[in-house]
Amino acid sequence: YFSETSLGAPCPINGLPIVRNISDLPQDNYGRPGLSHMTVAGSVLHGMKEVEIWLQTFAPGSETPIHRHSCEEVFVVLKGSGTLYLAETHGNFPGKPIEFPIFANSTIHIPINDAHQVKNTGHEDLQVLVIISRPPIKIFIYEDWFMPHTAARLKFPYYWDEQCIQESQKDEL
Amino acid sequence: YFSETSLGAPCPINGLPIVRNISDLPQDNYGRPGLSHMTVAGSVLHGMKEVEIWLQTFAPGSETPIHRHSCEEVFVVLKGSGTLYLAETHGNFPGKPIEFPIFANSTIHIPINDAHQVKNTGHEDLQVLVIISRPPIKIFIYEDWFMPHTAARLKFPYYWDEQCIQESQKDEL
Ligand SMILES: [Zn+2]
Ligand SMILES: [Zn+2]
Repeated sequence: YFSETSLGAPCPINGLPIVRNISDLPQDNYGRPGLSHMTVAGSVLHGMKEVEIWLQTFAPGSETPIHRHSCEEVFVVLKGSGTLYLAETHGNFPGKPIEFPIFANSTIHIPINDAHQVKNTGHEDLQVLVIISRPPIKIFIYEDWFMPHTAARLKFPYYWDEQCIQESQKDEL
Repeated sequence: YFSETSLGAPCPINGLPIVRNISDLPQDNYGRPGLSHMTVAGSVLHGMKEVEIWLQTFAPGSETPIHRHSCEEVFVVLKGSGTLYLAETHGNFPGKPIEFPIFANSTIHIPINDAHQVKNTGHEDLQVLVIISRPPIKIFIYEDWFMPHTAARLKFPYYWDEQCIQESQKDEL
């Protein structure tokens, strides 16, 4: 069950320890200012097939892209506060989103395929645990709330899956 | 998006608010001494189809049954410490389990179909966030580690799903 070398490696899919110290997991902003992302249990990284869990911290003012996905997503807010922007995607574009305050000890579920954005609109770090189904995540990104759904750009693999999906694809060549 | 009445109800599948205060969710021991269970986002309760999330607190000495399931399961330990007992189910019965210390800020994944048990072997409350796939959960329970797999008893619906699965089944009659 144990592996001495895999935990800190970027793509430790083999020999994953059953119990892992979250503090030892790789942490990066993956090119997104103000973000700290850790994949707590992941598909590409750890071989999960049905669920994936992230621990993310957003510095004040930082945010996710405006995006949608067909998988289920649940947030559990551990620290801080912020705003969820959520648009019902029943027209040709997301449109002006509804704003929901989010706060420590709240939970949020995102309706499938609805465009949304989470932003730290507070004054301290916003820390969330994020659970998604059917990993690895396939995300469609919008530049603004009035971009047509058909123009949203598929970002796959997503930032934190990029390195390991590429490495495993290279291995197959 | 809002419902004034559904949040505290036992089976609030309709009109589920997007953002919910975890402190307002129903909490019970469901007949298990030392347990506090909350379904943060659930299948039977909330209409989730692919993932389900629980917040559970185990008093010192309390534990899960010895059990297995074919869904994926990940624990994130928020507070306290304890022990994970895990048996590889490659014979006719689980057999003597391996013991893994678990602790605040650790994460644990349970290999599919392996018999396991989580116990608070520490001196303070053990609080965990539990993520499972393919809800509602179907659990096979063992009376001890040497009970044959074929004798394990299917407990479905599970304790916290019982009331609402029965109510929805009644509705269909
Ligand atoms: Zn999302
Ligand atoms: Zn389990």
